[in-house]
Amino acid sequence: MRDVISAHSTPPTSSDMFQAETQIRVRYAETDQMGYVYYGNYAMYFEVARVEAIRSAGFSYREMEENGVMMPVLESHFRYLKPGKYDELLTIKTTIPELPGVRIRFEYEVSNEAGDLITEGWTTLAFLKKESHLPTRPPKNLLDLLKPFFG
Amino acid sequence: MRDVISAHSTPPTSSDMFQAETQIRVRYAETDQMGYVYYGNYAMYFEVARVEAIRSAGFSYREMEENGVMMPVLESHFRYLKPGKYDELLTIKTTIPELPGVRIRFEYEVSNEAGDLITEGWTTLAFLKKESHLPTRPPKNLLDLLKPFFG
Amino acid sequence: MRDVISAHSTPPTSSDMFQAETQIRVRYAETDQMGYVYYGNYAMYFEVARVEAIRSAGFSYREMEENGVMMPVLESHFRYLKPGKYDELLTIKTTIPELPGVRIRFEYEVSNEAGDLITEGWTTLAFLKKESHLPTRPPKNLLDLLKPFFG
Amino acid sequence: MRDVISAHSTPPTSSDMFQAETQIRVRYAETDQMGYVYYGNYAMYFEVARVEAIRSAGFSYREMEENGVMMPVLESHFRYLKPGKYDELLTIKTTIPELPGVRIRFEYEVSNEAGDLITEGWTTLAFLKKESHLPTRPPKNLLDLLKPFFG
Repeated sequence: MRDVISAHSTPPTSSDMFQAETQIRVRYAETDQMGYVYYGNYAMYFEVARVEAIRSAGFSYREMEENGVMMPVLESHFRYLKPGKYDELLTIKTTIPELPGVRIRFEYEVSNEAGDLITEGWTTLAFLKKESHLPTRPPKNLLDLLKPFFG
Repeated sequence: MRDVISAHSTPPTSSDMFQAETQIRVRYAETDQMGYVYYGNYAMYFEVARVEAIRSAGFSYREMEENGVMMPVLESHFRYLKPGKYDELLTIKTTIPELPGVRIRFEYEVSNEAGDLITEGWTTLAFLKKESHLPTRPPKNLLDLLKPFFG
Repeated sequence: MRDVISAHSTPPTSSDMFQAETQIRVRYAETDQMGYVYYGNYAMYFEVARVEAIRSAGFSYREMEENGVMMPVLESHFRYLKPGKYDELLTIKTTIPELPGVRIRFEYEVSNEAGDLITEGWTTLAFLKKESHLPTRPPKNLLDLLKPFFG
Repeated sequence: MRDVISAHSTPPTSSDMFQAETQIRVRYAETDQMGYVYYGNYAMYFEVARVEAIRSAGFSYREMEENGVMMPVLESHFRYLKPGKYDELLTIKTTIPELPGVRIRFEYEVSNEAGDLITEGWTTLAFLKKESHLPTRPPKNLLDLLKPFFG
């Protein structure tokens, strides 16, 4: 069994954005006594989705951090449209709507097995030097990998 | 040791809003390898803050659910200004800015021990009948407890 | 991308046990400020591993619960040998050492990408009727699926 | 509201052990769709209980880590006797049964509001130098604070 929680990205087109899809299966730990995914767990799903999205473009968040750049979240937003349920295989479509500068924005659409959009949201993150915590430009190889997607 | 994670609310004034403060100590489990509170955990802090806020007004979320009304979150927003750190005693100021209708809005300001605002955000929640999942009015006793705060 | 977090089980042999392997990628949310997987998160990894193990045998935990039988954990044990790290693809070998009676035991071995055993442990779970919370026999189809593995 | 999640320890007696009690209120996030506290969350409750137990003796885990010593968990064990429920104020009695050497053992008993023992367990932790990850003796001030409890 391989390719666990990996994503595939759409090849560069004239669409002027980067998109990728990832799948996540809801764990029992992630439900609450309402019988649904706890609302706070979508932040974690978004984390997995953006890491897998950039991995599908050939970029490793882990390596970036090992190389001294980290990406703290500055702002996040969530709209809960329908409940997520235990054991469902959710599909998350992640979009990078514009080439990142000192910040990067990700947009997310989470759908259930029936194809219903259940949660949508976005996050903005900064690039910071781990040592100094000062803002920095995105790593050159990340920009090089993303540029072909942006007309 | 008692009154663990309880809140105190400000007595009714002409301020036309309801406010309460709660304290939460950051657990090791809630940090991540950046050395800070994981961004997704503020949703849980907000949950504790709003439950303690209405408890301080004399209302029990648990009893409301036992009586057949639940409050799923419809939307949430988070702005991360400074990192939260392990073992810090955070103070969360929760505001209900207007008397709830079929929805209720909570606003949150999280401060650290130095008094710095580290995260702020808001959530909107619905009142739903547990049986039918249909929207319902807020419980009468909740409205009765909140009304004195809204001139 | 499919077969996300699925498991494969070893075909019935004379080995007199049931075994399956699952893979889980460590999320940022699951690390703590020590830079490793928080010790409490292995309980969740074990949950995923046992659910995927029985799924690989053709059995759905979700459907069992929908049909009125739940499996609360009675006891769990964890030995942490080496740290788990962010973004590693962990492999969990799950063993059911004997045909379940009113209880079922699962044993787990978690290895990292280098093949090192990092955590091992076990859980025992009960079969309970959801309505009455009374103990019950394992579902017949679960026993039928497992029997061929037990000489 | 102060002294949130603090603990009180029993004054030194001839009992030859250290004991303290802490209270934790169950969060909605910590329940699962069975309607109970998810079994993996007791590891987090145990973490809070041991940190508050040693704080009540006058020792700060946070400061120890800042001074270069960390305490990873080596082994943990949990027996789930009754379910924990949302919003309950749990009481955790933590015992250090013997003066720590290169390892320290904590034992835990979690009771609900009705006084029923719901979960019990233990953990062993090591003292490691943060820099080298080599085992080390417990900090002298921790031993000095604990010795009076051990006849």
